[in-house]
Amino acid sequence: MNGASTPELAAAVSNAGGLGSFAAALLPPSAILEGVQKIRSLTSKPFNVNLFILDTPNPDHSEIIRTQSLLAPFRTSLNLGPASMPEKFCENFQLQLEALLKAAPPVVSFTFGILGKDVVSQFKRAGCRVIGTATTVAEAVAWEEVGADFICAQGSEAGGHRGTFIGDFEQSCIGLMALIPQMTAAVSIPVIAAGGMMDGRGIVSSLVLGAQAAQLGTAFLSCPECPIPLAWKKSLLLAKDDSTRLTRTFTGRCARGIVNEFMEQMRPYENEVPPYPIQNALTGPIRQAAGKLDRSEFISLWAGQGVGMSRQMTASELVQTLAAEIKSTMSNMLQR
Amino acid sequence: MNGASTPELAAAVSNAGGLGSFAAALLPPSAILEGVQKIRSLTSKPFNVNLFILDTPNPDHSEIIRTQSLLAPFRTSLNLGPASMPEKFCENFQLQLEALLKAAPPVVSFTFGILGKDVVSQFKRAGCRVIGTATTVAEAVAWEEVGADFICAQGSEAGGHRGTFIGDFEQSCIGLMALIPQMTAAVSIPVIAAGGMMDGRGIVSSLVLGAQAAQLGTAFLSCPECPIPLAWKKSLLLAKDDSTRLTRTFTGRCARGIVNEFMEQMRPYENEVPPYPIQNALTGPIRQAAGKLDRSEFISLWAGQGVGMSRQMTASELVQTLAAEIKSTMSNMLQR
Repeated sequence: MNGASTPELAAAVSNAGGLGSFAAALLPPSAILEGVQKIRSLTSKPFNVNLFILDTPNPDHSEIIRTQSLLAPFRTSLNLGPASMPEKFCENFQLQLEALLKAAPPVVSFTFGILGKDVVSQFKRAGCRVIGTATTVAEAVAWEEVGADFICAQGSEAGGHRGTFIGDFEQSCIGLMALIPQMTAAVSIPVIAAGGMMDGRGIVSSLVLGAQAAQLGTAFLSCPECPIPLAWKKSLLLAKDDSTRLTRTFTGRCARGIVNEFMEQMRPYENEVPPYPIQNALTGPIRQAAGKLDRSEFISLWAGQGVGMSRQMTASELVQTLAAEIKSTMSNMLQR
Repeated sequence: MNGASTPELAAAVSNAGGLGSFAAALLPPSAILEGVQKIRSLTSKPFNVNLFILDTPNPDHSEIIRTQSLLAPFRTSLNLGPASMPEKFCENFQLQLEALLKAAPPVVSFTFGILGKDVVSQFKRAGCRVIGTATTVAEAVAWEEVGADFICAQGSEAGGHRGTFIGDFEQSCIGLMALIPQMTAAVSIPVIAAGGMMDGRGIVSSLVLGAQAAQLGTAFLSCPECPIPLAWKKSLLLAKDDSTRLTRTFTGRCARGIVNEFMEQMRPYENEVPPYPIQNALTGPIRQAAGKLDRSEFISLWAGQGVGMSRQMTASELVQTLAAEIKSTMSNMLQR
């Protein structure tokens, strides 16, 4: 939810009875501290802050030059000047981690990798509950071994980046219908289902499969509190079940978004662009400029496969609607 | 379930209270008639017969020669002689269709394409209920428009061939959690969920999402009635959630199977092998020889993403177990 997340949105979800989440992966340490402080001023309820686990990037100069030339037509189309070498590719993960530990929100969640036992312990001693994102049973077992309190089971349906950190990306792209029961059988800590769920039926369905909770992202993108470009919001409301695809071309890491001109033009180079966060930094100016101009054809339109069920309501209304739908789904089941 | 299906297995499922299915796509017309007659002699309950909808293949001689050379090392490893040009690539679909209409089983199902309204009407007049396989909402709507009685919603979790016949294969690879609610919202005929489900929880979960029934394939591969090579059965019992991947290399059509040496060796040629049924015919002798020798590394080990939940019991026991699990899942839900 990076770029789609604010303290206000997280607090609204928590105040309505959900566990609001704040995406901090792209923020410098000072902004992480400020964000957590802001959420605390808006809610007394628990909330979560998410980080990407990243190694220090190792850019290859010639690979960057080659990729910049692939991206040049998009820059031209947006009236951006020639690309310069990025000053930095991402925030320093160790400093982000220190800031998060200092801020000590009630819940912290991580994706793209795994923490050491010692770091998980530090967060737990600071009073945080720790969620590790897993796309396979093996990743869930690894997170349980380092002491995570919960697993977020990311199904293949999920929008945005894949959290995979062990093994093959294709083999790790597993639908929740198959992933939840196999994962819950393998770990003893609670599993939070994520991916494709947009309403109360989806949530109940994941509980039936063995999950203890559900995490929704795409459903909140259409909320007025969500600060994404209008062109992205419009795309969400027009999208259908088969509008999304996984791509590495926006950021260098496999991620699910609504297919647009950028994804189609870059499709031949899927396996050639540099890894995250390098490609993310190279396409950043294009996506930001496109966002400001509301040109959906060059924005990374992250969305899960449930996008065709997008609804327009406030975050608070959405949480209340989901709660009501969970109740009605349960009572409908009783009548079968 | 082609190669994994017998009249006995279909009848056993129907006699136990399920709707048994017989895979007829690779059978000549006479064997379709005999198969249906055999099932009728074994059960008085309804059953289903499935066909692939295929155009007449249009082989490219030089493409076949090139592919035969790619496949030569596998033939050598199995002590098969040099490849000859196949005499035919598949059965004649029109003749299969005529035989199926003549046999008029209680239910007929189709995948890989769509029938015309007139053909659907012929089956309905012959007393058959018609199931059309859809991987997207658009495909489900198309089947409803030609008069199908039911849609089989094939989720991305499903083992074996993708049924996609409109649009992009990647975009049509949709998890059931997202596919079922979007599809059931778009059509008024009942939807049968297929993919990744291995137990009663999976079935209840798909009903919660809006499906009216569930179709299980992989779960029946481990049954003693299922005539697949022992090496395939062993692979099923060893496989995990992340053991499968989609591949075109066995048959020329995207299909999900347990990753083995053949899939890994052929991975660089995913987009180069000829389309179904041509590649299917070219690799047929390799897969058959490997099956006879129980060499799992060269068999197409079709399986869905739920494969890690495989159980060993008879088809009749499995149907009864699923029914009991559906009941216990429902009563567990009541206690929440």
